[in-house]
Amino acid sequence: MKQLVVGIDIGGTNSVFGLVDREGNMYGEGVVPTRKYPDFDQYLEELYIGINNLLKTVDIEYELVGIGIGAPCANHYKGTIDNAADLVWKGVLPFTEKMKRYFPNLPVILTNDANAAAIGEMIYGGAKGMKDFIVVTLGTGVGSGFVANGQLVYGHDSFAGELGHVIVNHTGRMCGCGRKGCLETYASATGIKRTAFKLLADHIEDSEFRNISYNDLTAEMITKAALNGDPLAIEAYEYTGMVLGRALADAVAITSPEAIFLFGGLAKAGKYIFEPTKKYMEMYMLSNFRNKVKLLPSAIDGKNAAVLGASALVWQEKDGEN
Amino acid sequence: MKQLVVGIDIGGTNSVFGLVDREGNMYGEGVVPTRKYPDFDQYLEELYIGINNLLKTVDIEYELVGIGIGAPCANHYKGTIDNAADLVWKGVLPFTEKMKRYFPNLPVILTNDANAAAIGEMIYGGAKGMKDFIVVTLGTGVGSGFVANGQLVYGHDSFAGELGHVIVNHTGRMCGCGRKGCLETYASATGIKRTAFKLLADHIEDSEFRNISYNDLTAEMITKAALNGDPLAIEAYEYTGMVLGRALADAVAITSPEAIFLFGGLAKAGKYIFEPTKKYMEMYMLSNFRNKVKLLPSAIDGKNAAVLGASALVWQEKDGEN
Repeated sequence: MKQLVVGIDIGGTNSVFGLVDREGNMYGEGVVPTRKYPDFDQYLEELYIGINNLLKTVDIEYELVGIGIGAPCANHYKGTIDNAADLVWKGVLPFTEKMKRYFPNLPVILTNDANAAAIGEMIYGGAKGMKDFIVVTLGTGVGSGFVANGQLVYGHDSFAGELGHVIVNHTGRMCGCGRKGCLETYASATGIKRTAFKLLADHIEDSEFRNISYNDLTAEMITKAALNGDPLAIEAYEYTGMVLGRALADAVAITSPEAIFLFGGLAKAGKYIFEPTKKYMEMYMLSNFRNKVKLLPSAIDGKNAAVLGASALVWQEKDGEN
Repeated sequence: MKQLVVGIDIGGTNSVFGLVDREGNMYGEGVVPTRKYPDFDQYLEELYIGINNLLKTVDIEYELVGIGIGAPCANHYKGTIDNAADLVWKGVLPFTEKMKRYFPNLPVILTNDANAAAIGEMIYGGAKGMKDFIVVTLGTGVGSGFVANGQLVYGHDSFAGELGHVIVNHTGRMCGCGRKGCLETYASATGIKRTAFKLLADHIEDSEFRNISYNDLTAEMITKAALNGDPLAIEAYEYTGMVLGRALADAVAITSPEAIFLFGGLAKAGKYIFEPTKKYMEMYMLSNFRNKVKLLPSAIDGKNAAVLGASALVWQEKDGEN
């Protein structure tokens, strides 16, 4: 009988869930509008109904073997979501405990989005068979999942992997975390917008971006302009790659990974982000690590990446038991 | 019957070895002058004779259960010492393979000094029972051993844990590795000397150090001056603690340890290094890690620390088997 897992990706706007097998094939998916349910218990009820409806649509014989959940501010050890600014519910939410009431005989496993992406990469993606690698998510912010000795590094409190909040410049840009110069103020979708505006200030050349407000500018527009050969957009990516490449060189010195996978919005810029990042990573790397670490695009990055990553949590735990 | 392990600490000048039980008690030790044997095979022969002589002096019934070795540039996976600049033998040395010819039925385990210190801390010292911690060795250079999920992070090539070569200032001090601004150019015994000389250049106040050449100055002299209330020496430690504390805050963001242990020369300065390091570590830490990570002196740091660390490798492997 086919074994299937429910993967749930909890976002501020929507919670997307899907049924996934060990090979990463999807057997249907569903959505619950997170924001519509300010009452946490009502949200869980809706999520349960949605999952149950999805399970009824499956037309093969299957066994449900677990629930994997990716969420912001997730505490893997406690199964809680702790004070997530992007979610409608405040405080510490006992997510897995409450989910287990609906699915009493199944493992329910929770982690944050970047960790889920890393485990997804290991189970379904480019990190299959790797024991030591890093996944860096380049979205609105920068997240990361570090895998060492075949295990995700959760750390003592489950909040390890905050590569986006390594400080790359102590006199640098203000970060939402209240400090200055965090990597994510440079190497995220928001960071490259800031870099584009810095370049508009520094340079005198004309640019299509001079007619666009900060709030209207998107990383996708910068990527598109780079693809069209816009010098300022290309320079913005070059600078982003320099800051990211240096930070990755430092991360390599600590965990010496076999590969680093870039995931999310900025990674879609292809060579515009990969080439400078690789160049500066090698340039600033300690010599004994040079030309050994692969810099790769995520192999699960696509429409269902977050659901896949969440579902992978269950397979990884099952693999560990065998 | 008492189980004992041989721990061997290979240094450029001397190789020290000792017999150690699971609790870290020493049952005698010996020394082979490393530099006296430019022929590697002859060195191994002498080391074997020395260990054998030591074994004969033990007056309790015992079982020898393994050999643990700490050495510079040690490749844990391959059991080799790779191009160690501080040792008389050049190239890649198949250390464990050759040792196994002398001790064919025993596990022979090799790692670098900082990793051995970390495992020693876990087996005998302050990290007993901890799953996630960092040991930072503040000697002539800066080394480190990262433990996550109860396992040492060796990385893909076994050379992980190079915290001393994280770059803290891209326009900073020249490092022996050929790059600029590595942590160890600031937070080592050599680094604090450089800081003292920088302060002599920046300030006009008189200081006892104005009569001492760079080559004559030692970190111990700076520590002693700090203990006597010398403002320049105290400022040198304050600066060292700032650079180290910031680097530790970044390391915490990556692996979220329960504790960080400081080991080696500079750690002996007590509050002069611990207080500023702790202060700046907390100041520059991402808020959700603040006031959670213990900064502690190593509990095995002393006369036999390196031999203890080396011997711990064997107990850790045995513990993993049980």
